[in-house]
Amino acid sequence: MTITTSWVGTANEPDSGFPLQALPFCAFTPTPDTTPHLGVGIGSFILDLHQLSESQLLNTLPADVRQACTAPTLNALMRCGSAAWSALRQRLTDILITIEPRSDRNTDQQRLVASLMLPQSRAIFHKPVAAQNYTDFYASLHHATNVGKLFRPDNPLLPNYPWLPIGYHGRASSLVISGSPIRRPHGQLKLPDQPTPVFQPTAQLDYELEVAAYIGTGNPLGTPIPIADAPAHLFGLSLLNDWSARDIQSWEYQPLGPFLGKSFATSLSPWVISAEALAPYRTPLAPRPAPLPYLAERTSTTSFDITLEVLISTSHMREHNLPPARLSASNLSDLYWSFAQMITHHTSNGCNLQPGDILASGTISGPQPGSEGCLLELTRRGTVPLQLPNGELREFLADGDEIILRGTCQRAGLPTITLGECRGTILPAL
Amino acid sequence: MTITTSWVGTANEPDSGFPLQALPFCAFTPTPDTTPHLGVGIGSFILDLHQLSESQLLNTLPADVRQACTAPTLNALMRCGSAAWSALRQRLTDILITIEPRSDRNTDQQRLVASLMLPQSRAIFHKPVAAQNYTDFYASLHHATNVGKLFRPDNPLLPNYPWLPIGYHGRASSLVISGSPIRRPHGQLKLPDQPTPVFQPTAQLDYELEVAAYIGTGNPLGTPIPIADAPAHLFGLSLLNDWSARDIQSWEYQPLGPFLGKSFATSLSPWVISAEALAPYRTPLAPRPAPLPYLAERTSTTSFDITLEVLISTSHMREHNLPPARLSASNLSDLYWSFAQMITHHTSNGCNLQPGDILASGTISGPQPGSEGCLLELTRRGTVPLQLPNGELREFLADGDEIILRGTCQRAGLPTITLGECRGTILPAL
Repeated sequence: MTITTSWVGTANEPDSGFPLQALPFCAFTPTPDTTPHLGVGIGSFILDLHQLSESQLLNTLPADVRQACTAPTLNALMRCGSAAWSALRQRLTDILITIEPRSDRNTDQQRLVASLMLPQSRAIFHKPVAAQNYTDFYASLHHATNVGKLFRPDNPLLPNYPWLPIGYHGRASSLVISGSPIRRPHGQLKLPDQPTPVFQPTAQLDYELEVAAYIGTGNPLGTPIPIADAPAHLFGLSLLNDWSARDIQSWEYQPLGPFLGKSFATSLSPWVISAEALAPYRTPLAPRPAPLPYLAERTSTTSFDITLEVLISTSHMREHNLPPARLSASNLSDLYWSFAQMITHHTSNGCNLQPGDILASGTISGPQPGSEGCLLELTRRGTVPLQLPNGELREFLADGDEIILRGTCQRAGLPTITLGECRGTILPAL
Repeated sequence: MTITTSWVGTANEPDSGFPLQALPFCAFTPTPDTTPHLGVGIGSFILDLHQLSESQLLNTLPADVRQACTAPTLNALMRCGSAAWSALRQRLTDILITIEPRSDRNTDQQRLVASLMLPQSRAIFHKPVAAQNYTDFYASLHHATNVGKLFRPDNPLLPNYPWLPIGYHGRASSLVISGSPIRRPHGQLKLPDQPTPVFQPTAQLDYELEVAAYIGTGNPLGTPIPIADAPAHLFGLSLLNDWSARDIQSWEYQPLGPFLGKSFATSLSPWVISAEALAPYRTPLAPRPAPLPYLAERTSTTSFDITLEVLISTSHMREHNLPPARLSASNLSDLYWSFAQMITHHTSNGCNLQPGDILASGTISGPQPGSEGCLLELTRRGTVPLQLPNGELREFLADGDEIILRGTCQRAGLPTITLGECRGTILPAL
């Protein structure tokens, strides 16, 4: 089987992660303090969508799509709907695909397009959407069970879990782009040996490996999205790190759920990989009991086969030129609920989703040891320190630790597609 | 003591609620499908701030404030900061105050200003802000205790309650303006006599009497707002009805808090009454144990003396021309936490607030019977039906019920100021 290639040479390298089939979106600037342009990743480059639109090469597309390509975030493009996303993807493919035999005309066009590219290594990335609403789900049964065992050993999984995708509203204002430093937060917490709480920097700073689903088109208030229609509302996926201060969280979370233990920062990866690009990597979730009819999907391949990894790079590792160490690996298909089910449940009461809204999966842990998506699980709430390859121990994150999330789609006969990386380094408390 | 009056006659009537001292903000249109203008309530009128700015009568104010007055929401004005809000209030007072003796010049100006007014009865109101983030607190000890008794009779108040303002992120997209119909939502819930959950319209639809604090200026991510600075970030107050589906809520809320039991709709009253207008009605909260130092306020008058009422108008009452019946009355100063404490706690981990963000109080219940701010409390979770004056019984809300929230500031020697009304009528489920 032959994989279709691009005239952008680096796109065809086996481990590029940005082949012609991926074309993930981002928002970027070549220098600080300029207005972001939308871009599309191809090989080691970013094709500037804003300039491409102005170059007239997108003139086969409707005016609203061409206009949306010149916006600083993806929200306007999301609003255009799935037929428009598909048409743009097809046009970009036509522009970037290898054409044989070469003619003067396509050589000229390729020269023009190449002039609208920036090496990814020189780009400054920005948040790809202006997300007004961010919902965080709890869709990993393994995560819910592992965490439940720590807090309720006799009753780890609550009775509602198998019936509905549990979720809560996250804080949209503190979403930050990958690479933004993460300041260790202060907070109110209660030490086990003290009668009253204290206000001090968290001693239990943690990451959470998550995948973010970006909503493309929304729904009017009062109009639920039926499960059959839900996939068409999914624009694409990114990586998301839901930083968590466990000591703040455990003192505050009853009865209304997580709040300041989460809202100090949530990191987003720069690339949004479209649902269409991910379609060849569709895969079923593990067998589960049938849900209530409103959540019952017609097809079985409701998830995506995306390998997820968490790596840590400590100050010590960087000082000694040691590579990051892998903390865990899991797969998006380890989830109990699909994103379509989360969309339909979220809107089942009439709640309106809006273009650019983020529905995050919750921590993605798999069934086997080594697949736990946060330190809370890996270190059993800090009681079993984790030994890193360089001998360092971690119960929770230390100042200077960098956490790196990665996501990859691999399937025989298909090119490897990356979701890119989501990075953040812990700064000491103020 | 003489109360300063306005040349707008209806502003000086004892029960106007909109005297010269109030000047609450709103966003309104005279007809549907036009872009909202900002306005200020005076007597039975709305003074059009947009037209006033264009009339040059605000030329003594900085350009950004004049520009902000022509926006369709208050967000731009909020961003200008408390000195600007104060200057605008002073200028509006100068324009609307009674001037004796009258001169031709001020008669001409009053004629011009009067031409920029619309009777409130003819206005269509819109959401006064574009709120990107909505946080709902749980700041009434009496509410928390009453609810706790229903769900945990042996342990009504959780140990964290007296130490921190419990809160959670609400859904910003489904905030609606007073008067918007409220569709009874479907949801997943578990009936006590059934082994598995069902998906059906809620049978336990409830209101929650709340006050919304609008954030004026925000804070950068990573920079907490110290308690001494918190009052300057408060732009003003409104009424808020946090509609709740109790059966959906009780099945879904563990372990991550309320979600779809709340996110179908939250109603906002049209008027935003500024913190400066409310300053003469400042009052202390009930005595409480000292909080941790980061939440300790220097002054004692940290709340506002605002009488709050909930009324119901059922279909039967309207058919028989019966007036709405009062369900309860409480006071903003019945809360355990002040808005300044909520602001400081919310940002204590570095979380950034933004202009137009809403911090709602949570249900405001007082210590005595008849002051419970929701039906959950009034009917003991539906077990003790409430008899209305016309003989109707209510466990929870019925289709056709209209809920009316009211807020009033009254103090000897001061004019009565209203927060207006927040209304919503229940439509049957789809």
